[in-house]
Amino acid sequence: MTQDDFRARLDRNADATEALLDGLLRPDPLPGELARPARLLEAMRYAMLGGGKRLRPHLVTETARLFGREGDGVTRACAAIECIHGYSLVHDDLPAMDDDELRRGKPTVHRAFDVATAILAGDGLLTLAFDILADDATDRDAEIRVALTLALARASGIGGMVGGQMLDLEAEGRFTPEGRPLANGEAETLKLQAMKTGALLAAAVDMGAIIGRAGGEQRRALATYGRALGQAFQIADDLLDAEGEAATVGKATGKDAAKGKSTLVSHLGLAVARDRLAGLVDQAKNALSTFGHNADTLRKTADFVAERRS
Amino acid sequence: MTQDDFRARLDRNADATEALLDGLLRPDPLPGELARPARLLEAMRYAMLGGGKRLRPHLVTETARLFGREGDGVTRACAAIECIHGYSLVHDDLPAMDDDELRRGKPTVHRAFDVATAILAGDGLLTLAFDILADDATDRDAEIRVALTLALARASGIGGMVGGQMLDLEAEGRFTPEGRPLANGEAETLKLQAMKTGALLAAAVDMGAIIGRAGGEQRRALATYGRALGQAFQIADDLLDAEGEAATVGKATGKDAAKGKSTLVSHLGLAVARDRLAGLVDQAKNALSTFGHNADTLRKTADFVAERRS
Repeated sequence: MTQDDFRARLDRNADATEALLDGLLRPDPLPGELARPARLLEAMRYAMLGGGKRLRPHLVTETARLFGREGDGVTRACAAIECIHGYSLVHDDLPAMDDDELRRGKPTVHRAFDVATAILAGDGLLTLAFDILADDATDRDAEIRVALTLALARASGIGGMVGGQMLDLEAEGRFTPEGRPLANGEAETLKLQAMKTGALLAAAVDMGAIIGRAGGEQRRALATYGRALGQAFQIADDLLDAEGEAATVGKATGKDAAKGKSTLVSHLGLAVARDRLAGLVDQAKNALSTFGHNADTLRKTADFVAERRS
Repeated sequence: MTQDDFRARLDRNADATEALLDGLLRPDPLPGELARPARLLEAMRYAMLGGGKRLRPHLVTETARLFGREGDGVTRACAAIECIHGYSLVHDDLPAMDDDELRRGKPTVHRAFDVATAILAGDGLLTLAFDILADDATDRDAEIRVALTLALARASGIGGMVGGQMLDLEAEGRFTPEGRPLANGEAETLKLQAMKTGALLAAAVDMGAIIGRAGGEQRRALATYGRALGQAFQIADDLLDAEGEAATVGKATGKDAAKGKSTLVSHLGLAVARDRLAGLVDQAKNALSTFGHNADTLRKTADFVAERRS
């Protein structure tokens, strides 16, 4: 698989998710809904449409494809996990949380609308994710739909993404008397990252495996891939932040260093962190051996995650 | 069924839900969870435990009981819908929303903790609701679990509760240039109320019907009951607010009137609103005729909703 083939695949998967989300976020109420308030719908569309790599949908799609599963049902699962990712960005950007004004070069939802609308848009997207999964258009087998629901909820709640954001706020010293960042050790930093971003990336792979009716051994192999990929994603993120700092004198300092936050780079140093990243990419790829060349796209995805520049 | 019997039943249902929520909100991570951050867990427990009438769980329980279904699985469904109700209170109380400092006589979650923790506690509870429903401890039949998930998600998302809160903020004039309340007509007021509170009350009854494997005709009868009960609940709320105003000179004015908000009482006047309420209670009770005396608790619940004083 060439790099161009991979990018084309990534783009096609992103387009499919975008189109499905666009169709789900329409003014017409679904059965059981009374109306869809225009301002809220507009904020949800603003948050979800027109951007992003759609990495999680890509992982769902390519994992399901290993088992010959594709089509609208799979894309609905992609839209569901993307709603979770999207809501988390809307809420994390809020003034009381990370207080960000821009996201992908556009004003954040609470800047483009207002804080109340942003909170509700996030709540609406979080709820929509589970509405999508429960509908039989996602999979005819109810056992599959509940398994998808459980995987997504477990990865994104108190013991996963939401809990990770909590740990992140704590690590920044938000709740210490003088706002001094916690001196988290490597293990605490790994746990925080595994919860905040790793769990949802691993869930994307797991959802693909669930849709694919993967057997126990295959599902465990894919879980190993998903975990390694999630860790690689986070080290790449830390490296991006730290190397952006070193790049040119006079450029803005890395955000993490400025906040005094522990990252894997601050624990390991640049060189060891780069080695660790390479090792994780190998580990992710090796976990796929049972799938042979069918898994080449997932292998390329591991490279893509490690090499990303934004 | 005497009034004492009814109150005992209401209390017992509340206690069962409380005990189940207490057990779900424990420090030990579930399979697939990495850790449960203490501060977040504490905020979720603070929001959920130690109070409230637990009206929605009561409706789930008593509806399921019509069909001979009871036990922990039913109580799990109660806990799930109560998590949705609880998260909505936490988020609605936030400074950017209704900016309330007290809830049931206690500081609201963002006052007892902080705004970021309150947002995350709400997100965690919303996610937990669907985690609970997807687990096979709720019902052995996956078809039932997805039906419960769909009913709850549909009632609480953009076309239900979250959308209703959006309409409520709009009705208060939040997004008009001078913050002037909208002059909503009776139809708009009914729609807002049906979404903001009615949808979740109706969903509680519907979830009981789903657990009970109600046939089409029974499910429609219960839907009529749930809708009428939801409307009765809201008129009782409006009357409480308006009559509190008239009660004693010198007492704080009714909140809705102070905000210039349209309510059914402002549309209909006190006398007609009281008649409308009585008519809805009759309608709710009549819808239950097919269940005979088995539905006496649900009938008493309609009276309870109409007569509540807080």
